[in-house]
Amino acid sequence: MKKVDPLRHAERMAHKQKIMNERIARADKEQGVLLVLTGPGKGKSSSGFGMLARALGHGMKVGVVQFIKGKFQTGEEAFFRQQSNVDYHVMGEGYTWDTQDRDKDVQAAEAAWEVARGMLEDPAVDLVLLDELNIALRHGYLELDRVLDDLQARPPMQHVVVTGRHAPEALIELADTVTEMKVVKHAFKEQGIKAQKGIEL
Amino acid sequence: MKKVDPLRHAERMAHKQKIMNERIARADKEQGVLLVLTGPGKGKSSSGFGMLARALGHGMKVGVVQFIKGKFQTGEEAFFRQQSNVDYHVMGEGYTWDTQDRDKDVQAAEAAWEVARGMLEDPAVDLVLLDELNIALRHGYLELDRVLDDLQARPPMQHVVVTGRHAPEALIELADTVTEMKVVKHAFKEQGIKAQKGIEL
Repeated sequence: MKKVDPLRHAERMAHKQKIMNERIARADKEQGVLLVLTGPGKGKSSSGFGMLARALGHGMKVGVVQFIKGKFQTGEEAFFRQQSNVDYHVMGEGYTWDTQDRDKDVQAAEAAWEVARGMLEDPAVDLVLLDELNIALRHGYLELDRVLDDLQARPPMQHVVVTGRHAPEALIELADTVTEMKVVKHAFKEQGIKAQKGIEL
Repeated sequence: MKKVDPLRHAERMAHKQKIMNERIARADKEQGVLLVLTGPGKGKSSSGFGMLARALGHGMKVGVVQFIKGKFQTGEEAFFRQQSNVDYHVMGEGYTWDTQDRDKDVQAAEAAWEVARGMLEDPAVDLVLLDELNIALRHGYLELDRVLDDLQARPPMQHVVVTGRHAPEALIELADTVTEMKVVKHAFKEQGIKAQKGIEL
């Protein structure tokens, strides 16, 4: 165990408390935030779903649009469909490499955006999760400018979380908070461990 | 909208499908994974809570130990305490800069580890979330070797998710999947936007 002088520890922590309190006092704007979770590392969608849980814990209303549909029903879908205050839509047609049909993918993305736009126009929805929207943008299935316009026109207190690799630069510009998830290690890709329920699915 | 030749698109996607299917076929090991979410970016704990939701959606049993307790009850705590199959413990004594008392912090971390160890010995618990454990390790509140031993001795199919900045190198070594969350932008720190319910709390 590290040996630390308790008095020095208390002093250092009092100093840190002062800094943290100043930071909290400075951050006094109340507004809906646009959060983008991107990069190749694991944890983007799951983080979005964690925020959903957090919002529901505060009695907030949430909406979810999943732009990419996997082959199997996921744990998150089964779970959040059982909860109240959740409007859940899985709109994609499957991975782009499974559909192999660009026109069908574009139609699915357009239909998904219509549902998303309905949420972005509704001040009763406190948090909107647009899961894997970045993938649809990356493939050019949706017009970026339209998406950015609809995001900007949303109710001022509404939070939006956008996930997926390759977030476009203009979306990063517009966002309030952006995290890039870096792969340090990946069990599935590097170590031959099957995608696990509760972790990947 | 991007102009893409539909035939070329279908060919490229068929090629990608082949690669993805080979990767899935190669990943045939079934085992509990140890996942570490670290780095300064937003999304570590929320990602852990998202995996909790995912696991619950598959009917799995989960355990949570939060090593750092904030000043307020969080949305995630309120939410997951209402769910079945969740064993939820908030064990910390508050942020280190608020307690300013190292001995008290060490005692709280030890008590938290006892609860965590009980979960790590129980094959009926499918997923264990050790939220902000890295912070307790970083401050030397817990012996790293003991923590690593207990993690390694857990039931082979049990998943563990560890969150918090500054994950120790030896924990990264032991882990199957590790993501480092990089800050690209942060609303609270840089733009004076207050920590928002559903996002930070």
